[in-house]
Amino acid sequence: MTSTTPATSAALVGLAPHFGDRLLTSAAVRDQHGAAESWLPAAAPDAVVMAQSTEEVARVLAVCHDHGVPVIPFGGGSSIEGQVLAPKGGISLDVSGMDRILAIHAEDMDCVVQCGVTRQRLNEELRATGLFFPVDLGAQATLGGMASTRASGTTTVRYGSMRELVLGLTVVLPDGQVIRTGGRARKSAAGYDLTHLFVGAEGTLGVITELTLRLFGTPEAAQSLLCSFPDLDAATACVVAAQHCGLGLTRIELADDLQMAAINAWCAAALPETATLWVEITGSDPAVGHDVALFQDLARDAGATRIEPAATAEDATRLWRIRHEALYANRALRPGIKGISTDVCVPLSRLPDCIAAIKTEIAATGLVAPLIGHVGDGNFHLVLLFDPADPQETETARTINRRLVELALSMGGTSTGEHGVGLGKKAYMEAEHGPALDLMRRLKRAVDPRGIMNPGKIFDL
Amino acid sequence: MTSTTPATSAALVGLAPHFGDRLLTSAAVRDQHGAAESWLPAAAPDAVVMAQSTEEVARVLAVCHDHGVPVIPFGGGSSIEGQVLAPKGGISLDVSGMDRILAIHAEDMDCVVQCGVTRQRLNEELRATGLFFPVDLGAQATLGGMASTRASGTTTVRYGSMRELVLGLTVVLPDGQVIRTGGRARKSAAGYDLTHLFVGAEGTLGVITELTLRLFGTPEAAQSLLCSFPDLDAATACVVAAQHCGLGLTRIELADDLQMAAINAWCAAALPETATLWVEITGSDPAVGHDVALFQDLARDAGATRIEPAATAEDATRLWRIRHEALYANRALRPGIKGISTDVCVPLSRLPDCIAAIKTEIAATGLVAPLIGHVGDGNFHLVLLFDPADPQETETARTINRRLVELALSMGGTSTGEHGVGLGKKAYMEAEHGPALDLMRRLKRAVDPRGIMNPGKIFDL
Repeated sequence: MTSTTPATSAALVGLAPHFGDRLLTSAAVRDQHGAAESWLPAAAPDAVVMAQSTEEVARVLAVCHDHGVPVIPFGGGSSIEGQVLAPKGGISLDVSGMDRILAIHAEDMDCVVQCGVTRQRLNEELRATGLFFPVDLGAQATLGGMASTRASGTTTVRYGSMRELVLGLTVVLPDGQVIRTGGRARKSAAGYDLTHLFVGAEGTLGVITELTLRLFGTPEAAQSLLCSFPDLDAATACVVAAQHCGLGLTRIELADDLQMAAINAWCAAALPETATLWVEITGSDPAVGHDVALFQDLARDAGATRIEPAATAEDATRLWRIRHEALYANRALRPGIKGISTDVCVPLSRLPDCIAAIKTEIAATGLVAPLIGHVGDGNFHLVLLFDPADPQETETARTINRRLVELALSMGGTSTGEHGVGLGKKAYMEAEHGPALDLMRRLKRAVDPRGIMNPGKIFDL
Repeated sequence: MTSTTPATSAALVGLAPHFGDRLLTSAAVRDQHGAAESWLPAAAPDAVVMAQSTEEVARVLAVCHDHGVPVIPFGGGSSIEGQVLAPKGGISLDVSGMDRILAIHAEDMDCVVQCGVTRQRLNEELRATGLFFPVDLGAQATLGGMASTRASGTTTVRYGSMRELVLGLTVVLPDGQVIRTGGRARKSAAGYDLTHLFVGAEGTLGVITELTLRLFGTPEAAQSLLCSFPDLDAATACVVAAQHCGLGLTRIELADDLQMAAINAWCAAALPETATLWVEITGSDPAVGHDVALFQDLARDAGATRIEPAATAEDATRLWRIRHEALYANRALRPGIKGISTDVCVPLSRLPDCIAAIKTEIAATGLVAPLIGHVGDGNFHLVLLFDPADPQETETARTINRRLVELALSMGGTSTGEHGVGLGKKAYMEAEHGPALDLMRRLKRAVDPRGIMNPGKIFDL
């Protein structure tokens, strides 16, 4: 942490009368807000302000704008690439208390929520309507944070990511001005797409305080399957074939042999320790029946050695619970040590090459690095386990992370499919975007001329 | 047309050596490029330059940037709200000759095209692959123009609009710099979403010269239906019900009684002259069978008085050809006179209210104004027919257009679902966006500080 600057002190003096005990400067709270869910070194803010409304967010930003003090928006604190760290000090603006569901428009299949609502909370509230919000990721993330990092997850192959599902936003601009972008209409051709400017901006252009989101009807039928393949090539060939047939794939997830071994150990399971697909197909009863049969044919054609359809709903729940245990299973592979949880996304046809190339490099280093991913999108994760006390191993993990990004970019892919840039992927923005990065900088300067919003994230100015 | 300024003359002198006879200043060519597919008065540019490559576009922009000369990108010339008009003179940059399909990646279900390729051309080229590009609108539009106006159409309810289907772009910035945005990965969380900054910007921020587009597999089965309802309320109730059931609706289009009468007259058909839905359901054979049966139940529940499933593929083609004749049918209602083809989009639940309210106002004026729309998205068009020689009728048509927008905005909708802003909807941007409009202006100044790109469109600075 940097020592509190005179500007920050002045801003805190300005904010204290309004926020009282919701302005926190204890080391414990600051440390909690400046710790990353990742390998990145912690960096605590000078203070934490708990905001409860758009007006309060506007007040914080107006004061910090006047004083030139950094503001780091904080939701669930689950971002992976250091998005909530405060390497330049300033104020962590915690909006997790803004957790009201403002409207559910069942007939229009949309809702309006405050930024601190988690996707789990929203889906609980929606249950009675027969509707749901599909973005499904591992963390207890807030919807504002998910929009800010352009989050996706297991269901993106069917429903899209936050990029596709946010219809509109309320945003507080760096100077405290409140704007609304988009709206409740399903489409609009009325001017610049400001919604997409803020989705994925990681809080560097303003603070998202409310979101209008698309909802979907719960499908009539669902069938999950677990399919084992001799190798990753065979598994991805099956995915390509299924995509081309337009099957009703709602989820299609890939794990490698090491990941399956980790899962077996952690869950006391006995699944084949080979390339594996988790699949969920949804739709009407006859559609699911047809698509499941066709998928099984395609899987067999691709060389599947075992296909296990979930026999009951409980069975399906168990299959997907095991999938979601992957993160913990990986940590248990080498207890007490750190992991770089990295992700890239490539065109689907390049996925086998990309995976094969990085696995060869990993094998040469002896690093333990299980692979799991949202393979229908060409997106996968590696968890690069390393002992931070071992400089050589630390360096190896970082090198593999860099090599993975280089491979993905060389194959027409991106340095991150869903975790975002934060601090962890900043070094690759020049290589990925070229001169377009300068345009991003120009936009940043235009929207946040004083540079107070989450400074140092995504790119340096 | 404004008289050519010294700056424009200087720019033309700079461009002439390179472009030769592809730099055109004849009145006929200028008039053709300055005429709108709409009620707006023509405004010809000072010159037309036919560009054949990204490099040539960059050259034109660099020269015009140096001289401060307006540049109006021109593709198919089919935009409706005056997007290609040149009210401030300058150069119409015709990119319709940039019509190469650069790559089709069948396995990844994407393609890369130059901006001048039409969607019809692309789909012809794709036929052998079993893939297609779904955005389906009335005009022979170019894909660059469709991206620039954020176009949608009959299939948006299933596949999304240009907003959802453009993965990446090559863009020439106002100073001639070339950037690439997005890419071939299905998703990315790597920095600001520049792609969506240019999609819908109507050429005011730069020139789109190449597009990477998502493609889809042709569904196994399709069934079209024509359904007649006693009134618009019943028809929209049917749409809401079908959406909630998650039926495989690929198209669902609404026409009112007047529209049906116009179609009957133009096509020598004898369809019921009442609120009508055109529906297409696609998917696997059993899925379509299930969904068509369920849709018919829902339609009957909603009060459908006639349901006519297409018996053969030819029958289906005929149904959709009739739908696409609506524009010509409307013009034939009052031959030789003008029409304001306007569009708004509202949350689906407000569609009956919005339509009822505007039809009441229209009835009070005696204006002839058939209604047709992409009802699954809450988007509809009115064609407001008027005699431009009759000032009273002209004023009435403009008033109804304004009232329609006011109604849509008051219902949480947007002033345009798919036609864009251009000059025709500019007056409503303040009401629709409030302070967010200032942010759009700030972005415009940041990207195009000299204000050369399609000046005067969307908003004034």
